Amino acid sequence: MEFTLLEKTTLYQSFSDLGKRIFLPDGIFYWSGRAKKEAELIGTIGSAFCYDNEITSDGDNEWVPCYLEEIKQYANLGIKDIVPYASIGGLAEFRSIWKDWILKKSGFDAESEKQKLDHLRTYISNPIVTGGVTNGIYMACSMFLNPGETIICPNKRWGNYDNIIVKNIGAQIKSFDFFKDQKINIDGLKKAIMQVKESQEKIVLMLNFPNNPTGYVPSHEEAQNLVELLRESQAQLGVPFIVIVDDAYEPYVYEEKGMLNTSFFYMLQELQDPIIPIKLDGLTKELLFYGGRIGFVTVGLKPKWAKNDKELEQLKDEINNKLEGFNRSSISNANHFYQKVAIKMFQEFGMDKIIQSRDKVKTVLSDRYKKINAELAKLDSPDISVDPNAGGFFLFVNLNKDKVKATEFADYLLKRYKVGVIPIEKPAENINGIRIAYCSIDSDKINEFISRIQKALVDVS
Amino acid sequence: MEFTLLEKTTLYQSFSDLGKRIFLPDGIFYWSGRAKKEAELIGTIGSAFCYDNEITSDGDNEWVPCYLEEIKQYANLGIKDIVPYASIGGLAEFRSIWKDWILKKSGFDAESEKQKLDHLRTYISNPIVTGGVTNGIYMACSMFLNPGETIICPNKRWGNYDNIIVKNIGAQIKSFDFFKDQKINIDGLKKAIMQVKESQEKIVLMLNFPNNPTGYVPSHEEAQNLVELLRESQAQLGVPFIVIVDDAYEPYVYEEKGMLNTSFFYMLQELQDPIIPIKLDGLTKELLFYGGRIGFVTVGLKPKWAKNDKELEQLKDEINNKLEGFNRSSISNANHFYQKVAIKMFQEFGMDKIIQSRDKVKTVLSDRYKKINAELAKLDSPDISVDPNAGGFFLFVNLNKDKVKATEFADYLLKRYKVGVIPIEKPAENINGIRIAYCSIDSDKINEFISRIQKALVDVS
Repeated sequence: MEFTLLEKTTLYQSFSDLGKRIFLPDGIFYWSGRAKKEAELIGTIGSAFCYDNEITSDGDNEWVPCYLEEIKQYANLGIKDIVPYASIGGLAEFRSIWKDWILKKSGFDAESEKQKLDHLRTYISNPIVTGGVTNGIYMACSMFLNPGETIICPNKRWGNYDNIIVKNIGAQIKSFDFFKDQKINIDGLKKAIMQVKESQEKIVLMLNFPNNPTGYVPSHEEAQNLVELLRESQAQLGVPFIVIVDDAYEPYVYEEKGMLNTSFFYMLQELQDPIIPIKLDGLTKELLFYGGRIGFVTVGLKPKWAKNDKELEQLKDEINNKLEGFNRSSISNANHFYQKVAIKMFQEFGMDKIIQSRDKVKTVLSDRYKKINAELAKLDSPDISVDPNAGGFFLFVNLNKDKVKATEFADYLLKRYKVGVIPIEKPAENINGIRIAYCSIDSDKINEFISRIQKALVDVS
Repeated sequence: MEFTLLEKTTLYQSFSDLGKRIFLPDGIFYWSGRAKKEAELIGTIGSAFCYDNEITSDGDNEWVPCYLEEIKQYANLGIKDIVPYASIGGLAEFRSIWKDWILKKSGFDAESEKQKLDHLRTYISNPIVTGGVTNGIYMACSMFLNPGETIICPNKRWGNYDNIIVKNIGAQIKSFDFFKDQKINIDGLKKAIMQVKESQEKIVLMLNFPNNPTGYVPSHEEAQNLVELLRESQAQLGVPFIVIVDDAYEPYVYEEKGMLNTSFFYMLQELQDPIIPIKLDGLTKELLFYGGRIGFVTVGLKPKWAKNDKELEQLKDEINNKLEGFNRSSISNANHFYQKVAIKMFQEFGMDKIIQSRDKVKTVLSDRYKKINAELAKLDSPDISVDPNAGGFFLFVNLNKDKVKATEFADYLLKRYKVGVIPIEKPAENINGIRIAYCSIDSDKINEFISRIQKALVDVS
């Protein structure tokens, strides 16, 4: 494939060597595609097929992918829904549904927002299916980071970012203190951007709201400040800004008012070139399919990259080819079963029913969120502070590092009070605290949970 | 994790920078593991859990991963079998079953081979689950190849090797002509080995029997010659030899006599350090679960790497940690459903029943294999030659490049005779021919298929 339009964009300019190099050769697909259309006798398909009655006792004369009869009893789906490969970029139907889902999640419902919705529909890439949200992060980071290059992330971030970026890709993380005075630390982020600019001609940044491990969600005002910061610093520096938006916990915002309750991607996508948002989301938490390993990567395109609709479609094809090239050369494709189940759920129940069903889970989590925050608020200790949180699965309690180290505290808490938490202790990044996963704590046990933490705090202070 | 034993091995010495760098930090797993054992109140688990009756109308008081009620109707498995994450390296039960499966596949059944079987059981790593065989190839190549380094592969190889190795990893393929006089080209491979040694202090080689695209399976004699070549050239060069054995098509050998009908891995594993085989296999074709995306990587260990059983176990843990680190930082883990279905199939039906069931498919393919080779043998043309083949899903017909280019022939065949095949035309690697995927051609149509090819050959000659 030629990348005549893509090569002119700031997106391409920001690609890593891998991103520039990767593509999906069309040889086999060209010939198998033609065979499907033009041939009477097809010898291009690399999966075994046969008549059902050649391999099963009760099969009919249908031409099916060869399978083992025993599997039939484990799924209420047809053989064709669980046995064959899904397409490299994901089942076409599923990608189309997920694009609609991204539009739906924008919340651009009002008539007055119709223009925004149309803009979004026009200027996002066809979401590509990855092997889970982790694999989406891996794809996005691989496409933009060479070994040695730097991505900016908050100091409070999912620990696996470090595995993906530093240990696997061999790139670096420029960390900034996420909070200052219980708000997002805009100045700290700005400094990080300025520093990174000194060594590379692009800014790559990854944000995650609701955040793991803190549960932080920006207020509308903070989100607006963040947008302003990105706009101003991009204007000042003149290099492309790639903003990877990790939306793993997207729907789980529990504060009804004042907080950004849609993905930050949507605000970013309204900014002009070269501020380029990449949306990462997936079934994992959104449809509570942890073990499903189905995520999506969606790129925010900019109007100036294409002169007309035809060019825009071509550009989308070029981007799609690159990302499919990455899939093909690392996982080939994502599993069929969970894609099909999700398609069926969307088709048979509809988005609103799915949201309604998920709202039951959200209510459970929201109740715990309120309860645990209320209990923590009662702890009147100068030696702890709870990071601002309004969603997600976790919250984070900072401990006074002069009084107790987080790992020692967690060890004490476990031994003395039989309470398990995850300590995070990174002096170099100014972190000393514990992550509490209230997503898996029974609501009735929250009082006792916090009460024991309080006792432990008294003991160590 | 410390890699005190691994670091002393030729395996470690052969790792890429990524392979040397990657590991799975034990922080979260250490604390969540301890919490499970020591805590009464657990706040470490990052998936949402609740009582079933909090989110479903007919649920009971069971503590379950939060899920959407709608999914229940698509699988005949419990929520816990399809919703939660599988472990990073794969479900423990499944890994153990697959190790037994690898032992079974060795064919070391006879009492006289008991020692070989015991040796195999002792000296292979715990198979790690990957996101399909492609993902296993990607893992293995990433662990051993830096950008710019070289792996040796036959000229006739799966096209996706080039995507993985060259386009994704940025390494190089040293290609050798696979066949000479209808046998594997031992001299060509030897030359390739000698050349690669000039630029790097390790030999990495990937072999695939039955081969895609040719269907080639070595005879016992050829396999023995290959073993000798590897042993001799390793002894001569003194550097580690990493031999990646792509066993995607392992069970599909159709010649009963004279051919190697078990993986080449087993012969390699009997060689001494530093000839190190890596076995790649999986559900994809072995259990005909193409869309399942479940593969395995298994490393052949060498006795001299560990002084005693305790060291051997530690060494296996160290290798496992590295490979789990790779999984964690790229896909997190593989999907739950297909692992669980495979476990159930193995447990409820047993290996022999699965093989019996698969043999129905193998018989279908074997009949086509015989028929298509018989038909091709009748084509008495000096301008074609069929590569030696005895298994797999494909065969390969070489065309006289002075008479017709493969792509032109495929185009003509499609337009004039409505027959679809995949042309492979790589002048630099001495390839000009067509791949025929008889795995998906109805047996009754094979005569006609070959007859039309014959007509096209006459037309173009």
